[in-house]
Amino acid sequence: MERHFETELHALRDRLLAMGGLAETMIHKGIKALVDRDQGLVQAVLAHEEEMDLLCIEIDDRCFTQLALRQPMASDLRFLVGGIKINSDLERIGDQAVSIALRARSLINQPQVKPLIDIPRMTGVVQEMVRYSLDAFVRRDPELARDVIDRDDEVDNLRDQIFRELLTYMMGDATTIPRAIDLILISRNLERIADHATNIAEDVIYIVRGEDVRERGDKELRKGLRLPIPNNG
Amino acid sequence: MERHFETELHALRDRLLAMGGLAETMIHKGIKALVDRDQGLVQAVLAHEEEMDLLCIEIDDRCFTQLALRQPMASDLRFLVGGIKINSDLERIGDQAVSIALRARSLINQPQVKPLIDIPRMTGVVQEMVRYSLDAFVRRDPELARDVIDRDDEVDNLRDQIFRELLTYMMGDATTIPRAIDLILISRNLERIADHATNIAEDVIYIVRGEDVRERGDKELRKGLRLPIPNNG
Repeated sequence: MERHFETELHALRDRLLAMGGLAETMIHKGIKALVDRDQGLVQAVLAHEEEMDLLCIEIDDRCFTQLALRQPMASDLRFLVGGIKINSDLERIGDQAVSIALRARSLINQPQVKPLIDIPRMTGVVQEMVRYSLDAFVRRDPELARDVIDRDDEVDNLRDQIFRELLTYMMGDATTIPRAIDLILISRNLERIADHATNIAEDVIYIVRGEDVRERGDKELRKGLRLPIPNNG
Repeated sequence: MERHFETELHALRDRLLAMGGLAETMIHKGIKALVDRDQGLVQAVLAHEEEMDLLCIEIDDRCFTQLALRQPMASDLRFLVGGIKINSDLERIGDQAVSIALRARSLINQPQVKPLIDIPRMTGVVQEMVRYSLDAFVRRDPELARDVIDRDDEVDNLRDQIFRELLTYMMGDATTIPRAIDLILISRNLERIADHATNIAEDVIYIVRGEDVRERGDKELRKGLRLPIPNNG
């Protein structure tokens, strides 16, 4: 029985990784659709959404079934509740990628406002945040998770830079306004993906070392973790 | 012991309602700060954020402690996991209200682009969605939850109307662009609050009648619920 439970937790981890891989693919294709002006990639992202929905249901099912059947304590309980939260963040990352693809679909049919440099750069940072947050989860590595959280400033700076530059274009030529706003909103989609990666990293820290945090009584840190420390940890 | 567990679930419900009330207050004050050009209300929203963070930790603690100590089955398990998810959505609604307040803080110091009509209207709809999603939770009323979900189209229409109108201002007078974009982003904050209210409503449907949904095998509906149906429900 214990053995079987471990196998289940292992399978669950693999499914969460598959979900993370899919989320990364969707981000990549969504932005590539925009940069390469490729409607085929827009369609690819929309097709992945269906796949992701099914995976999300499967993972929730697995977590919930284990919670109900095994009634786990301490770190397994944290892992399962953390799994439900990480799953939900990955699904929302997928939603953001879909939103990017839909904006790309409309932008592809119009002249380019400017060559895209900072949006691909921001995408690179955001993709790494998603990847490393999942790596931190697999390796149970709170330091790596902390690195992910620390990169949020970099994302905010790129977001502001993109905004300022597009503002200049809009002020200079009013006909660029609708397209420039779509690009700004794409940068906000990327920002939200970074927020979700940060949430995942916080959950990883919680899963790995819930107890340490409670002992340290660090309110800010606990707040960041967003999951409480079990009494029987 | 059973009795004590029920008292705990009751207390948990009350805390979630308090959290919902606080979220509503923050939305209300954030938009009122903008409409009345009142910096005091901006500060009030920022002060509420601290309060909300503490409440959020307390609720997570309560849910998690009960999961660990009681190892509940079926509907109590759904209630506790649902509680963790609803808590997280309410916290993110608070984050959006803070974001609105910060944009208001900057807009208050500049001339108005236009009299605000659709943003307060959109706020009214969004606040009702938050309130009714919590009412649905308290009354265990899936029909009311369904009504909340159905209002999402109304929100999308108002969002598009706000965008189109502000676009006209920006095209006509480039100096309005930065302020108009802030107003557009406020409408997007409201849209995200509506998304969170929709998530809460979906969780309520799940908490109340998980089994029905599984029996009906309605994939779309299950997908909407975002929580799986327990095997032992």
